[in-house]
Amino acid sequence: MKTYLDCIPCFVQQSLRAGRMVTSDEIILKRILDETCALLRNISMQSTPAETGGMVYEIVRKITGVNDPYKKIKEQHIRETKAIYPELEYLVENADDRLLTAVKTAIAGNIIDLGINKSFDILKDVVDILKQDFTISDYDAFKMQLEKTTTILYIGDNVGESVFDKILIKELGKPVQYAVRSVPVINDVTMEDAIASGLDEVAELIDSGCKTPGIVLRQASKQFLERFWSSDLVISKGQGNYEGLSDCGRQIFFLLKTKCPVISNHLNVKENAIVFLENPLFFPADGSSNL
Amino acid sequence: MKTYLDCIPCFVQQSLRAGRMVTSDEIILKRILDETCALLRNISMQSTPAETGGMVYEIVRKITGVNDPYKKIKEQHIRETKAIYPELEYLVENADDRLLTAVKTAIAGNIIDLGINKSFDILKDVVDILKQDFTISDYDAFKMQLEKTTTILYIGDNVGESVFDKILIKELGKPVQYAVRSVPVINDVTMEDAIASGLDEVAELIDSGCKTPGIVLRQASKQFLERFWSSDLVISKGQGNYEGLSDCGRQIFFLLKTKCPVISNHLNVKENAIVFLENPLFFPADGSSNL
Repeated sequence: MKTYLDCIPCFVQQSLRAGRMVTSDEIILKRILDETCALLRNISMQSTPAETGGMVYEIVRKITGVNDPYKKIKEQHIRETKAIYPELEYLVENADDRLLTAVKTAIAGNIIDLGINKSFDILKDVVDILKQDFTISDYDAFKMQLEKTTTILYIGDNVGESVFDKILIKELGKPVQYAVRSVPVINDVTMEDAIASGLDEVAELIDSGCKTPGIVLRQASKQFLERFWSSDLVISKGQGNYEGLSDCGRQIFFLLKTKCPVISNHLNVKENAIVFLENPLFFPADGSSNL
Repeated sequence: MKTYLDCIPCFVQQSLRAGRMVTSDEIILKRILDETCALLRNISMQSTPAETGGMVYEIVRKITGVNDPYKKIKEQHIRETKAIYPELEYLVENADDRLLTAVKTAIAGNIIDLGINKSFDILKDVVDILKQDFTISDYDAFKMQLEKTTTILYIGDNVGESVFDKILIKELGKPVQYAVRSVPVINDVTMEDAIASGLDEVAELIDSGCKTPGIVLRQASKQFLERFWSSDLVISKGQGNYEGLSDCGRQIFFLLKTKCPVISNHLNVKENAIVFLENPLFFPADGSSNL
């Protein structure tokens, strides 16, 4: 997905929000805003928003000298989600369609407001989300692909949500590689966060090589690219990964909530839609297409 | 009011919105965003948001070559509000407290979504707003000041709302000067718009000299400044004028709806609050203060 004009004010907003995670010093925050404004004059609108996002968060890291502005929040989110993990497992184990419930649980982690609610409320919110239908659902295609799959690449998104990912990974019942960000960027899951989420118990963790809030293939590690192109099934969580991968041309199942007008328009759905989408720009090796 | 950090992304957003009123050419719109970003690196955070806003809209005018991007929308809003003007007059004439109803009608013009609804719905919305209480109300102080007043300066805000201002001006029952923007800026009322709104029938129209979406005293015309400092009563409509005048040190009655978090915080009210406020930073000539 290319960068849209509406992304520009949003990047400025994000730089301020990330800066405020670290400092309330207005001089430093204005410097972050100034450098972000300078950066945005020179970006290519053909690059993905995730790519520019990476540069914006690099500015915040450089100016504040803080490598992981969201560290405390991430730790809190892991504590909160781990506290309800047994109940989540129970819900999936007792569901009529265990796989579908696990998929919905995984995206529920992207939807709920962690850090605001108590455990009881988080669990209640998850149960409510499990009752909701997807706005776009390619679940049947996903199930078919899963059956003939031996290797799965699962691309992580936010911390906290990562604990919910564990539920789905266990339910997939096949070997999974779980890809993480190479450095802290927003509240996205890094190697350290993935281990703290307990994902090393159910998946092989791999470093994507990306310092961006979403996979950018030209920045990705050799190991990631090898897995990306050779895995039978790729699951991509969240908006950032969708931004980076929507045009890549291989089959991917995108699992996300649309949280901004740009991505909602791109997917032709309303904001706050829950989407489970097989990449419509997928051209299989046999020359056919699902377009 | 000074510029807050949160105003910076908002200025970027506003430049895009104003540009889109004139063109959908993405190259031109990116140029507007680029020049706005360059501008924002050099503004003083001690200046008022209205001052920077004026420079942002100047960029839009310069790059697009269109002097009045909101012209069509303003014409539409005047048509819509004039269509219900007789009903508004009837409501005020038959109210228990005619002056209060006229004040509320004047601010209703700032609240309702013109250009979206039909006449019938606009009237219904006004009637609903008349039932609402102000979050801050210095109406009693206003009434007292009005009684001892011989000259009134009324500082206009948006077009459409300007037709509603006519109702209040008639109800004030004293000579009124109505100040307008010197050039088109957003949908703010200019001399041409004020005449089209019928305000010349009830007030003496004066050019504020300001090219900004809110009064900036150091840009104001000599005529405006003379009236501003000598009038017995000043009524200021909308957020932009509040931004420019909140620190000026003279008595003003601000009549506005808080439409952004920065101004809501500054006034210590929730967003979307309806406010009728006597300037708390007013220091009367006798050395007393209402602080």
